[in-house]
Amino acid sequence: MAANGATARRRSSSDYSEVQASRLGTSLSLPDVLRNSFKVVDGPPSSATGNPDEIAKLFPVLFGQPSAKIVPADQKSTADSNQRLKVGVVLSGGQAPGGHNVISGLLDYLQDKTKGSTLYGFRGGPAGIMKCKYVVLTTNYVYPYRNQGGFDMICSGRDKIETPEQFKQAQETAVKIDLDGLVVIGGDDSNTNACLLAENFREKKMKTQVIGCPKTIDGDLKSEEVPASFGFDTACKLYAEMIGNVMVDARSTGKYYHFVRLMGRAASHITLECSLQTHPNITIIGEEVAAKKQTLKNVTDYITDVICKRAENGYNYGVILIPEGLIDFIPEVQQLIAELNEILAHDVVDEGGMWKKKLGSQSLKLFEILPHAIQKQLLLERDPHGNVQVAKIETEKMLIEMVETELESRKKQGLYKNVFSAQSHFFGYEGRCGLPSNFDANYCYALGYAAGALLHSGKTGLISSVGNLSAPVEKWTAGGTALTSLMDVERRHGNFKPVIKKAMVELEGAPFKKFLSMREEWAVKNRYISPGPLQHVGPTSNSSNHTLMLELGAQA
Amino acid sequence: MAANGATARRRSSSDYSEVQASRLGTSLSLPDVLRNSFKVVDGPPSSATGNPDEIAKLFPVLFGQPSAKIVPADQKSTADSNQRLKVGVVLSGGQAPGGHNVISGLLDYLQDKTKGSTLYGFRGGPAGIMKCKYVVLTTNYVYPYRNQGGFDMICSGRDKIETPEQFKQAQETAVKIDLDGLVVIGGDDSNTNACLLAENFREKKMKTQVIGCPKTIDGDLKSEEVPASFGFDTACKLYAEMIGNVMVDARSTGKYYHFVRLMGRAASHITLECSLQTHPNITIIGEEVAAKKQTLKNVTDYITDVICKRAENGYNYGVILIPEGLIDFIPEVQQLIAELNEILAHDVVDEGGMWKKKLGSQSLKLFEILPHAIQKQLLLERDPHGNVQVAKIETEKMLIEMVETELESRKKQGLYKNVFSAQSHFFGYEGRCGLPSNFDANYCYALGYAAGALLHSGKTGLISSVGNLSAPVEKWTAGGTALTSLMDVERRHGNFKPVIKKAMVELEGAPFKKFLSMREEWAVKNRYISPGPLQHVGPTSNSSNHTLMLELGAQA
Repeated sequence: MAANGATARRRSSSDYSEVQASRLGTSLSLPDVLRNSFKVVDGPPSSATGNPDEIAKLFPVLFGQPSAKIVPADQKSTADSNQRLKVGVVLSGGQAPGGHNVISGLLDYLQDKTKGSTLYGFRGGPAGIMKCKYVVLTTNYVYPYRNQGGFDMICSGRDKIETPEQFKQAQETAVKIDLDGLVVIGGDDSNTNACLLAENFREKKMKTQVIGCPKTIDGDLKSEEVPASFGFDTACKLYAEMIGNVMVDARSTGKYYHFVRLMGRAASHITLECSLQTHPNITIIGEEVAAKKQTLKNVTDYITDVICKRAENGYNYGVILIPEGLIDFIPEVQQLIAELNEILAHDVVDEGGMWKKKLGSQSLKLFEILPHAIQKQLLLERDPHGNVQVAKIETEKMLIEMVETELESRKKQGLYKNVFSAQSHFFGYEGRCGLPSNFDANYCYALGYAAGALLHSGKTGLISSVGNLSAPVEKWTAGGTALTSLMDVERRHGNFKPVIKKAMVELEGAPFKKFLSMREEWAVKNRYISPGPLQHVGPTSNSSNHTLMLELGAQA
Repeated sequence: MAANGATARRRSSSDYSEVQASRLGTSLSLPDVLRNSFKVVDGPPSSATGNPDEIAKLFPVLFGQPSAKIVPADQKSTADSNQRLKVGVVLSGGQAPGGHNVISGLLDYLQDKTKGSTLYGFRGGPAGIMKCKYVVLTTNYVYPYRNQGGFDMICSGRDKIETPEQFKQAQETAVKIDLDGLVVIGGDDSNTNACLLAENFREKKMKTQVIGCPKTIDGDLKSEEVPASFGFDTACKLYAEMIGNVMVDARSTGKYYHFVRLMGRAASHITLECSLQTHPNITIIGEEVAAKKQTLKNVTDYITDVICKRAENGYNYGVILIPEGLIDFIPEVQQLIAELNEILAHDVVDEGGMWKKKLGSQSLKLFEILPHAIQKQLLLERDPHGNVQVAKIETEKMLIEMVETELESRKKQGLYKNVFSAQSHFFGYEGRCGLPSNFDANYCYALGYAAGALLHSGKTGLISSVGNLSAPVEKWTAGGTALTSLMDVERRHGNFKPVIKKAMVELEGAPFKKFLSMREEWAVKNRYISPGPLQHVGPTSNSSNHTLMLELGAQA
């Protein structure tokens, strides 16, 4: 099999739509602090998000190092402008709009401040580092990808640098091409790995520094210093456009409930943001389901209740948003799946259903209320390790069937009289590779430029952080946050593993509270908003998303 | 059950996104001929598209009437400007972007030229006419819907005015509110019905005139005089945006084949247009499949061949477009379904499969190669008449399974070595209710304005037609085409029924030929184009679609 992306074709001008071409020609703004003379200054020593003692043991060299701020300087940067750097960059994990601009920003920094430097793009993700597969990224090479979506400039991959053997391969590559620095663009896992790599290089007395960049459309890599992960803004706007269209359709047709599943497995930020942008009748937030220890029946009943209430008001249609990872948040489903994996590993599933006696009573009850197709899927479709394939369950279709069954039963009791028709949607891939919004385009460019500045000033083990995002681009701040300061440990197979904790939807946070204050009205009345196509010029083109603005306190 | 849309909530300004609001404030352009003094002049007598003798019998009053042109006049219109008209308008069938602008254009005509007139919006489609359910459409009422997607101003419905009883109800409504005219906004069926209604009113010596307007995102209502149906332009642009994003994703990820099913059952115009906009690796056009009498196996083999060829070139990913109505174009599938309906009506489907002996050999062979899920669906899911539910088959998933099976078999022969992973998509509802493109916004406004002029000049049984669409809006022409001239007859249950023939993809037409000249290159090389979000200002905002321009000879 050809390596991931190894075969992607270089873009050429004939491949561009007019809109893409016009974005290509749009110049990027830099925060004032990066545009003018600046210096990198250290903050106070840092600790860790949790278990600092364990993190200190895992990162003996880097633990406690200060975060850095980039601040205006009266004169030229203290960094040596005659230095020529050899820097690598890698894209890790799923696509997010803006990745190409991180690379553009990094390249522009090197061109502006360390003329004669070389930028290596490792191909196909971390595997490219281990196999020393790269392309030299020149201005000409990078230009066709400016402001463009996708990761196809150098492609990405999901391999990890984890084992001693893999670390050794990475070291060999760093030595072979004499790398001064490496920028890792990725999510929480990739940034954890970036920090391990930084630690490893330092420990081996190698000069190669490592800087991370926060990427994920899921929006679950963020903290006080790293207020947003790039791609979330664009992806949510694209999903919200489509949800808004579906809403207008629902209201016009007057006879369908649209169940929309949205990408985002581990956290429900995308679903919450899309809800704030479009005001659907029902929004399920995984974190709330988990906090309230809700069952699948609870969720089904809630949806059914709203449908019945709407029927009383004369509305026989609606729009319902569901996060991709919903069932991962339901404890009883996790329990059922664990029991099924156990049973399927040892027993034959007999037609007569004798095997079901091995299920606990709660799991059996849950299994019995699942739609037949889902039951089948749970029993038949397994991953290479023999485990049930939870990720393959089409949650929106499962809920439609469960709501249908519940409505039938209410109909028999005379509690519901309408005809229920549903349409299902999954919005995912359409959003990962859209043209970056102005926000993501500028944010990424600043992240990349700042990453260059951090490397140039000798930093390692930091994640590029751009702040003050509720202000215009000119006023944004820049710096680098100690990756160890974002970490906690998890116990896996008896060992402590460092992890950057995923940022979940906070039930006490401003975005969820805003949603909470409105959802009852949205449920029964119709307050649909259709955001329309993502704009690059004119109204709304420079606004970011509700989640970010609410978290920054910049929106009521 | 609440009548379709009867309960839709009026839009208010708080429901608008900024983009919607900005569209609301955008003024609409009218063709010069409608903006200045004009008169309506008749062309030569018309005939019918087919079987003129039968059409003459079905439309004894209207058959042969001339089409009309709206042309500049030296002085004020010959139509009486002191006349006050009572005009009704109705939306019929599925949503298409721009419907609200037809109504805006009609209202503006009445305001401009027949001050004091009243516009009645029949609610929920033709049922609103029969039940005399309407709302008076004032400037204030209509304003919030200008340039907005959806049909929620008065909603739509799929009822038809067909039986003598239903015609009587329509007559009663016309008499009750003293209707001078009625504008029917709909597809081929609705316009056929509009003409029957016009004939009926004339025959009964009633004054009510009827004018049609060409609506359908499917693009299958068009002729020389009616070069486009509205909504097609916007819907294709929205689908193409998403397809473009999926392409960038495919190229970046390098490991998925994306099978994209696109709305459009009867004809494959949408699929062809999206293909011309985005250059996918494979596009299946139903009309070509039918013309070549291809089997499902032929289609599967074609897709598999391209996948294998791409694998040899190092590409293990791609994008494939499939029209929603594909299997309706495959004769053997139609045959199988007919046989199944017959068998299922009379026999029990036994587990042992004895029932299969009743299938003809060709149908049995086809049934056996279908994926299990599809076999089940064909046997179990039936509509209220007991018929197999063809419309519910997810063609893209069926093809994925069939291609998978074929690739497995080639793998065993050593002809294919890669891992095949596929993602499925269906783009439909997201496109029907988008914000109208500038083209659809202006086209609809002109259609509605012209419909007003036709009514005012005493015309009936015409469809509003706006032409010269490759020129700027100012130079567009306007007029009305005799609906009978678009008709042919079909024999149904032994009787002749008038029909406006659906315009299919012409294999000798310019759009298909353009596609044909490029598809081999698109298949093996990657020529993806990602059109990006629909623009209302700036580049591409005023261009229409490839199909229209190629058909008009305005694009090579």
